[in-house]
Amino acid sequence: MTEPYAAVDIIRAKRDRGALDDGQIDWVVDAYTRGVVADEQMSALAMAILLNGMERREIARWTDAMIRSGERMDWSALDRPTADKHSTGGVGDKITLPLAPLVAACGAAVPQLSGRGLGHTGGTLDKLESIPGWRALLSNDEMLAVLRAAGAVICAAGDGLAPADKKLYALRDVTGTVEAIPLIASSIMSKKIAEGTGSLVLDVKVGSGAFMKDVERAHELASTMVGLGADAGVRTVALLTAMDVPLGLTAGNALEVRESVEVLAGGGPADVVELTLALAREMLAGAGLDAVDPAERLADGSAMDAWRRMIIAQGGDPDAVLPVARETHVVTAAESGVLARLDAYAVGVAAWRLGAGRARKEDPVQAGAGVEWHARPGDAVATGQPILTLHTDEPERFPLALQALEGGWSVARDGTPVERLPLVIDRIS
Amino acid sequence: MTEPYAAVDIIRAKRDRGALDDGQIDWVVDAYTRGVVADEQMSALAMAILLNGMERREIARWTDAMIRSGERMDWSALDRPTADKHSTGGVGDKITLPLAPLVAACGAAVPQLSGRGLGHTGGTLDKLESIPGWRALLSNDEMLAVLRAAGAVICAAGDGLAPADKKLYALRDVTGTVEAIPLIASSIMSKKIAEGTGSLVLDVKVGSGAFMKDVERAHELASTMVGLGADAGVRTVALLTAMDVPLGLTAGNALEVRESVEVLAGGGPADVVELTLALAREMLAGAGLDAVDPAERLADGSAMDAWRRMIIAQGGDPDAVLPVARETHVVTAAESGVLARLDAYAVGVAAWRLGAGRARKEDPVQAGAGVEWHARPGDAVATGQPILTLHTDEPERFPLALQALEGGWSVARDGTPVERLPLVIDRIS
Repeated sequence: MTEPYAAVDIIRAKRDRGALDDGQIDWVVDAYTRGVVADEQMSALAMAILLNGMERREIARWTDAMIRSGERMDWSALDRPTADKHSTGGVGDKITLPLAPLVAACGAAVPQLSGRGLGHTGGTLDKLESIPGWRALLSNDEMLAVLRAAGAVICAAGDGLAPADKKLYALRDVTGTVEAIPLIASSIMSKKIAEGTGSLVLDVKVGSGAFMKDVERAHELASTMVGLGADAGVRTVALLTAMDVPLGLTAGNALEVRESVEVLAGGGPADVVELTLALAREMLAGAGLDAVDPAERLADGSAMDAWRRMIIAQGGDPDAVLPVARETHVVTAAESGVLARLDAYAVGVAAWRLGAGRARKEDPVQAGAGVEWHARPGDAVATGQPILTLHTDEPERFPLALQALEGGWSVARDGTPVERLPLVIDRIS
Repeated sequence: MTEPYAAVDIIRAKRDRGALDDGQIDWVVDAYTRGVVADEQMSALAMAILLNGMERREIARWTDAMIRSGERMDWSALDRPTADKHSTGGVGDKITLPLAPLVAACGAAVPQLSGRGLGHTGGTLDKLESIPGWRALLSNDEMLAVLRAAGAVICAAGDGLAPADKKLYALRDVTGTVEAIPLIASSIMSKKIAEGTGSLVLDVKVGSGAFMKDVERAHELASTMVGLGADAGVRTVALLTAMDVPLGLTAGNALEVRESVEVLAGGGPADVVELTLALAREMLAGAGLDAVDPAERLADGSAMDAWRRMIIAQGGDPDAVLPVARETHVVTAAESGVLARLDAYAVGVAAWRLGAGRARKEDPVQAGAGVEWHARPGDAVATGQPILTLHTDEPERFPLALQALEGGWSVARDGTPVERLPLVIDRIS
């Protein structure tokens, strides 16, 4: 078969700051999936895209080409509107766990395809797998059955969904081309659009613990993704939210499941509750269910009921005792004052090093490992008071975790005002 | 074995406009040669280098790392100073053929490693292979024997010379990263320095038929290479020379050998003679042989004697009849006037399409194919006068060659002054 384009011409066009036309984009994504465009050609193109950018039309076409590389799911058999959320990833970001059943309890269907953790940010599937029996791998039919039973499903994306993205993501990871906004946006949105959700809320994290360290780039990414959603007929809204301080009071797999269950039980840390409700309201608005107040469904236990149904439908036991790490180490305050800083990145790296995360995607994770913090920036602390508890099955991991935390938190004796980002920084629709 | 660096960190550093340190450069070139750095990683790095550039120190170190990937030749056993020339490639550029034996006849030793043609520019080895019996592949011992017998040798670079460059060049060719000045300069200079010449003259071509279309970029490339030569202890000078019009009166393999022999016999086109002498004088100056006048050695037949010795020492028969194409096609002037343009690129593509060049490095070339032109810009031409003769063994190639020449030459009836570059544009030392 004769190919209508040569990869090198497409690479050169982007290298020389040109815009790729629809035919070039369709071909290069398809030919890469087929193996006709080689990895070394796609990585050169990815670097040229990272450094020279793409127009909105190019990004939309690229996203569409990735969607067309695989199947597109369809939830029209359900009698409810669908809504989903995607977070760009943060430390202690367990929001999906209470959010999906909460929104289901409010009347939407939530077909949530999630990922595993890599590096210092946790993965939703890793967290849920700390629940005995719970299964992340479902067939499309099983997904539909869980959605019918519980209103929400959280599972791994199958191989049929945007295979071009799967191949490209693995390539970008080893070639220094992860950080290109057109490629990040099209990667996220191709999967979410192929997933077949009718509306989508994007939680774009900003700060030391996030992928995007500054508001400007986060805003650019959010706007790009909102535009892609709109172009594809998915009602899409983005919230820019704080990730300078970790969310809640725990980072780790079973630790975060426990905290999520507290939220579903009507308690839990205030920031987790606030962000869960903010995102739930956006999802419900997107699904045309504005009239429902998610705070009520948290308070009346119906969100907890949806959670239990969802866990059971995926083989898990919601009443099982969650795994606990074999060893703990407590870090205390050396002086009295106010907790001035608790850096999300430092906490994320510490949790990772304790065994909650993985360095390579083949690595296992520890269910019980992680970091718990007993104060938040602005809280008064007294000499000798526990600030952090480190959890791991392997105590030899403590020194490296403690090293990661060095300089990552501080106590101010003089009442210096604590500077931090507002929880919800901006909204893009 | 644990590697001291990760490829992705080095790619990211260059992507983010950083300078690579010596350890990073040494490692990445070596690890790529060993296969530890993957093709897709090196191509992303090459694109980042193309778009973000390299400092002089980085280019020098990169060149040195490529030299150290293989052997370094040594001609200290000879009782003559060594001098070599490199051309960045043009159309009708047969200068190496008369130049090497001429400089040998003046007392220097010329160890000239040459390449084959790819695309619209011809290759010195392809040209010489049209001489029956002549061999391009020599062992190092054979090279030394030819140098002792004739004072000059023109042959293919062995596999032991800068293997990192060989691997990288093939990768750049398919990933749109050929045009990076740091990579072009280090590729050329690593081979020339490893070849062991004591002095070097660079013929950097400028114009439509050259790799560098404008003087500014050609100047940058030339300065970079002259600096690399100086850093490595090789006396290096560059001439920027015209490639808007093809050199001499022929482009093709046997056609150019015939023209070169005319020059060695004391005749030949004026521009070929002029450039040969200009480059010879630079090579002789570099070798400390300024006192010798190369024009005399052309006139007295000693350059021709050196040519015959060199061809015989490499298995060729200097008296053999050269191959002639089976078919010719003549293009005539439709009106009288002055030949206003003869575009080097158009002629180069036509010669290539007639069979003188190759599209892929595995392709064979025709010895007799090529283009002959019977007038040069500025010459008066009369209606019906032959302007071009096309040569090929396969007449089905004529239409595509004629298409390439369309608009590539023109006759001005009104005596419009002919604009062209001077033969030698600049000298960089």
